[in-house]
This record gives sequence, C-alpha cells and structure tokens, in this order.
Amino acid sequence: MEKIVSLCKRRGFIFQSSEIYGGLNGCWDYGPLGVELKRNLKNYWWRVMVHERDDIVGMDGSILMNRAVWKASGHEDTFTDPMVDCRSCKARLRADQLIDKKGIKQCPVCGGKDLTTPRAFNLMFKTYVGATEDESSLTYLRPETAQAIFVQFKNVLEVSRKKLPFGIAQIGKAFRNEINPRNFTFRSREFEQMELEYFCRADEGMQWLDYWKEERLKFYENIGIARDNLHALTVPDEERAFYSKGTYDIEYDFPFGRQELEGVAYRTDYDLSQHQKASGKSLEYFDEETKQRFVPHVVEPSAGVDRTVLALICEAYSEDEAPDEKGKMETRIVLRFHPRIAPIKCAVFPLLKNKEPLVAKAKEIVALLRPHMYVFYDETGAIGRRYRRQDEIGTPFGVTVDFETLGEKDPALRDTVTLRDRDSMKQERVPVKDLPGILLSRVS
Amino acid sequence: MEKIVSLCKRRGFIFQSSEIYGGLNGCWDYGPLGVELKRNLKNYWWRVMVHERDDIVGMDGSILMNRAVWKASGHEDTFTDPMVDCRSCKARLRADQLIDKKGIKQCPVCGGKDLTTPRAFNLMFKTYVGATEDESSLTYLRPETAQAIFVQFKNVLEVSRKKLPFGIAQIGKAFRNEINPRNFTFRSREFEQMELEYFCRADEGMQWLDYWKEERLKFYENIGIARDNLHALTVPDEERAFYSKGTYDIEYDFPFGRQELEGVAYRTDYDLSQHQKASGKSLEYFDEETKQRFVPHVVEPSAGVDRTVLALICEAYSEDEAPDEKGKMETRIVLRFHPRIAPIKCAVFPLLKNKEPLVAKAKEIVALLRPHMYVFYDETGAIGRRYRRQDEIGTPFGVTVDFETLGEKDPALRDTVTLRDRDSMKQERVPVKDLPGILLSRVS
Repeated sequence: MEKIVSLCKRRGFIFQSSEIYGGLNGCWDYGPLGVELKRNLKNYWWRVMVHERDDIVGMDGSILMNRAVWKASGHEDTFTDPMVDCRSCKARLRADQLIDKKGIKQCPVCGGKDLTTPRAFNLMFKTYVGATEDESSLTYLRPETAQAIFVQFKNVLEVSRKKLPFGIAQIGKAFRNEINPRNFTFRSREFEQMELEYFCRADEGMQWLDYWKEERLKFYENIGIARDNLHALTVPDEERAFYSKGTYDIEYDFPFGRQELEGVAYRTDYDLSQHQKASGKSLEYFDEETKQRFVPHVVEPSAGVDRTVLALICEAYSEDEAPDEKGKMETRIVLRFHPRIAPIKCAVFPLLKNKEPLVAKAKEIVALLRPHMYVFYDETGAIGRRYRRQDEIGTPFGVTVDFETLGEKDPALRDTVTLRDRDSMKQERVPVKDLPGILLSRVS
Repeated sequence: MEKIVSLCKRRGFIFQSSEIYGGLNGCWDYGPLGVELKRNLKNYWWRVMVHERDDIVGMDGSILMNRAVWKASGHEDTFTDPMVDCRSCKARLRADQLIDKKGIKQCPVCGGKDLTTPRAFNLMFKTYVGATEDESSLTYLRPETAQAIFVQFKNVLEVSRKKLPFGIAQIGKAFRNEINPRNFTFRSREFEQMELEYFCRADEGMQWLDYWKEERLKFYENIGIARDNLHALTVPDEERAFYSKGTYDIEYDFPFGRQELEGVAYRTDYDLSQHQKASGKSLEYFDEETKQRFVPHVVEPSAGVDRTVLALICEAYSEDEAPDEKGKMETRIVLRFHPRIAPIKCAVFPLLKNKEPLVAKAKEIVALLRPHMYVFYDETGAIGRRYRRQDEIGTPFGVTVDFETLGEKDPALRDTVTLRDRDSMKQERVPVKDLPGILLSRVS
C-alpha cells in the first residue's frame, strides 16, 4: 500500500487536503491525474446508469437541506457511533476500537483503563444557516445523497412522466464526521457518492435487488476490476438496517483487506413513508392501470466514488521488467487502467524535440485527436523515459512521430506513426489518418 | 422572470431544496433536465479550459480545509457583510438594504427606526471536524474554490512539470451564508464555481488579464449567449480588492437586471505570498533559464455555474407562434439552447405507438444514437404535442419514424426519417444511417 500512496502523491493523483498546513484529517484533494480518473469514473457511471437507459433520470440536490429531512430519515437520532473518552490521556475513541485484555477494556493510545461509558456520537457535521446561531437555524451537511432523491421523489416523478419501475440517479458529495478516518482515502470525512434509488412495486423488490447486484458487479468489471477481486456479500439479517429486507455489500480486495465498495440495499418503502408522514405531503404513486395509490418500494445501489477510485488504482498497480535506454532490464511501474477510465488516453511524442518537422507533425496529431479524447504532448527526454512516465500513470497508448513519419526513409511510410500499447509494449505502424478511429474504438 | 421560474419547476430544471419541508432559503436542487444542462456547461468548460490546452491542468480539492487556509487568505477576518438588527421587529438586515428616508435609516420590514449599529457578519459557514466542538476543531465550508488551488500550487507544479505561464482549473461547490439570498438561483448560499488560476510572471499580469477577459467572453458566446447581452465592466480602482491590479466583471442582462456572471481578476502574488508566509512553505517558482526564484502572479477567471445555467435558461427562453394539431396558431414556448448545451440532443418518435414496426424502428434509432449523445424516446400523444414538449425543454432535434421509413409508400424512402429542427420547425428527410454523423456535427 505504501508504494501506491507514494505513487499517488508523486504523480499527482491524490494529495492531502491543505497539506502545507499539516492537512485536515479525513479530507483529500485530487491532483491533475486524480481529477481525470474520477471524472472518467463518474461520467461512465452516469452514461450507463442514466443516458443509456429509458427508466432512469438524474438529479443534483444541494448538500445543505432543511433539518427536517434528517429528523424524518432518522439520521438526527440514530446516525451515531458509540464513543468513549480515556480519562488518562484524554483520547476520544470509538468504543469498538478499545483493546480488550482478559475482558478489561483499555485505551489503545496509552493503555489506560479509566474510560468513560460509551455514549452516542452523531456523525453528521453541524452548521447554522442564516444570521443567527441557534436551534432554529441548525442543519447538517448531508451524510448521504439519497435523502435528496427521496424528498424530491414527487417532483421528479411528475416532470419525468415515468412509470414504475423507474430510478433517480445522483452523484455528489457527502460528509461524515468519522472518529477515525483511515486507509488513505477509503474512509474519509468528505467523500463523493454515486447513488441510484430505483422505485418499484412492493412485490418486485427482491427481484430488483438481485438485478441491481448483478448490474453493479458488471459495472466494476467494465471499468477493469477483475471479477475475482470482487465479492457480493449477503448481509446477514442481524446486520441489516431494520427497514431493509435484503442487502448485498459489493466488496473489493484492497491491500488493507476486503472492504465495501458499494451497498445494494432493498430499503422497502421506509424512506418515502417517513417523509410522507413528517412532511404531510403525499409521496404516493398512482397506477393508471390498476387505479391504485401506494408508496413505492426502493432498491438502492450506493457506490463510493473515492473508494472506487482507490480500488481502480490498487487494481491497476503493477510492476514488471522492461529494458531501459541501454537495453538493461529494470523494474517498470505500470498502472494497467482500463482505457475507458485512464486519465490520459494517448500521449504524443516527437522523437526529437530539436527537429522542427517532427515537433510540427506531433502537434498536428495532438490537434487531430483532441476533439475526441484527452491527449498529452511530451517532447522532453529520451523516448524510453517518456514511455515510462506514461506507463506509470496508466496512459494506454503512445504515438511517436519519427523520421519515417516524415517520409525520409521510405515514402510508403510517410504519414504513419508508431502506436505503442502500454501493456504489451508492442508497437504497430499506423497511418495518422486512422488514429482517431483506432483509438476511439479502444478507449470508449 | 415568473414564466422562467415556473417553467424551471414544471419541466424539471430547478426545484427548491427540501421543498416538501418548506425549503431551505438559498439552496436549490437540479431536476432531470437541470442536471443535464449543468453537466453540459461544466463539461464544455473543462474541455476548453483543460483538455484542449497544453498550459492548464485540473484538480479537485475538498470543501473542508484546514482553518489556517482561511486565516491566511484573509477570509476569517474580512469576508464579512455589515449587518444590523431591527429592535422593533427583530429582523436581521444587511446594512446596505435599509431604507433611507431623508437621511434617517428605517427597517425595510416594519419601518422601525430603532436599529443596532452595523457590525461585521462573517459569510463563511462554520463547522467542527472531529469528536470535540471547540476552537481547535473549528473550520469552515469553503467560500470559494480558489484557495484549494493556491495551497496545492507547489504540489501541482511539481507533478505536472509545467513552466510559466500555466494554469490550474477546478470546478466545485462553495458556500456563503448570504443574509438575503435572492433572484432565484442567482444569489444562493450553496453554489458551484468554475475557477481557473493562471500563474504568470509579474510583468505579464496585465496582458493575461486582457487575454482571459476576451477568452471568457468567447466562451459565453460559444454556449449561445448573444454578445449584445454580455458586458465586460472594468471594475474601478476603489471597488477592487486591495491586492488586485485590475478586474473585469463579465455581466449578463438578466430579466432582473445586469448582474455578474464571472469575475476576471488580476490578483497579483497576494494569495501565494500569504500562504507562503503563513505556512512557512516555499511557494516559489524556479525559472530554469534565468535561475531566478519568485512567487508567481496570478490571473483568475472565476465563473458561477448556477448563475451561468440561469443565464442560459433566460437567454434561451422565447415564445413564438406555431400551429396546433388542427392548424390553429397558438403560442409556443421554446428554449433556444445552443445544441452544445441542450439537456437532450435528440428526441425520437414513432409516429404511432400502436404500430409495432414503427416502434421497433424508433427503438433501433435510439440504440444507434445513444453511444454518441443523450437521446429521449417518446411515443405518447399526438406528434405535434410531442414536438411541443421537446421545444419547451430546448431539444434541438426531433426524429420521426413514419410509414415512409418502413418503405410502405415509396421504396426509395425506406430507412429514411424526418429530422425536425427546433427553431425553424423545418423538416428534412434523411437516411437513418446518416443520423449519427449529421447530429454529432451539429451538437459538438
């Protein structure tokens, strides 16, 4: 894991937030490559979950919502972790992380045994909206994006003219004041979610639960995560939320252990019913065929953006052997991202930077490819080193403009370039005019 | 403006946040069409500001940052509005919004004259990070995205290997506890920014300021805002931030008046110098040619996503006359979005929904177009009404599958469809196989 964390910093995937001030625990910034990787992941999710389907529409709710939302959802009362204080060293600890020595609990920091009794610590960040700071202006940063969907259910249903089953999808930030953020970006205080609420009839809930588990597993495979490293855990009855009739956790084998990427939960009609009761507004669906009115049930595939980005990096990271400039074998770090989610799709290199015709041709190729994908131009250093820099950030393709491109050796090779594959390191000779088509078919 | 607000709600562009609970002042949700419009705007900004340029990279910083950031930037001390309380009706008011009657200030709510003296009200939302609630854990929701760029300047510089001039771009949420949110989504408490910090040498600051003003004006034209409705205001010396050597406000003629869409500010080396001093970390740039070290200057084009979305809707809104089913002229509402930013690019209609071959062919066309753009399938209602529904949400193109498509009348017309243009309402007959190419060239 250290190698991955170090690569993330060194190549600009992920930095500690506010690093020059010592950081802020549980908060992270995405650098130039991280932001592209994250965008590619989110855009692909949106494409397959919203744009390619007739039964799902998107929305984008605000992070700050009326406090009544969190009373009705149950978060204000029950979204808590049990916490204890160590009276010896003043550490504040999660009760489930105490050390148990022969039935006696100890502080994991100082070993002290003088601990307070556990009390509930609410994980929502508080803030005050408006010019006063009191109970009337108190609200929270949303701890999940889902509730914005539930409270807008009726509005979205009306404007989209959808019939059951149909879904509402959303990507956005959420915040949880975790007592112990850990495992790099895996458990953060600020994070992003990709959530779908898929509304259906009560008697179809269990089958949609299974449908979405399978769809979501396919999604992870389609972004390059090996099926063998994915696990769909059936959450046992006693560990599910009391209102859920069935939940799968989709887990990934991280270097620090098997951990949840996504929960697929059949939440029944709990959320909509709670909001209907608390708001006094009908959140019922009217079935034109049966003339029935009822509160729909819902299945929720809820994925973590940051932990999926981290899984993508962990999955992609590998080391192999490749020859250096002088043919000597050396260790090569390569991120084997699926081309679909790789931050940069193609790098373009003039063989030499001091040969103007090579540079001009390379820049022409950049201009040719740019309308179709994110490309990177690099003219600095030996060509082998330039390949290696791109391997390390997972760029799947490299195009090199050489003297043959200029037609200097063989006129038949004029306007052809070498196209190098990151994984096989094989090079093929292709006509410049075919590049957009070839590359697009490989990165879509 | 009422017509626009009403259309936004009725067709699912924008809803009040937490509407079923009476809303939350200054917070808004984007519905199914609003989220697509906003995505198209942000993606186009990212394309022209990051992907199509060699001199700019992106990043994505966290909303919660170390409080030291806001001390150093000056926000903790000076990011305030003057506020007064009315002792009669207890209203809390912005000092510049009092009524002035012959030199005597009055409360705009009750007309009372018993007002407190103005005091500074900080516009940052406070919260506490970690298990305690005290000064040591206090921080703020960021009031602008820019500071995340400044504090990561050195990290991004190092990983991107850029030379001056170069820029760092970011899109993200920011929060300001406005005393009086107003003008629909224009002045919100939660909003999104698209910011570029463009770093350069001190002696080039003024010229980059002018360059970016022009670039940004072009941007707004390229998303369909008429140049006549845009204004580049030179902010006078006395109204500029003290550290700025020059600022333009790019304004738009909203129905509620001429208001700022974007500020283009030459911020000198103020921000980097403040953070260098406060953090004790060097934020200098090393010039390999001159061997000099210095803190770069910066020009910042800072655009509001929400207000640009609102400008796009205001600009697009129009009413004209079109014939109804029976040929009678009626008022047509049409959003004349530039195809590039229209939420839905193309709607596909079978002429009749109870003719299976028409429906099957229409669905084939949906499948053909979907990999390239967001398309919408609609089979419900008379064709004229379906066109009208799409006009109202700004869908630039409509494809209708009719009996000629099936080759029932004239074999030469088999596999052709009508392609209808939203603005001219003209229809052309085009082969199905040409649709992706024709449409892509018009919506890119």
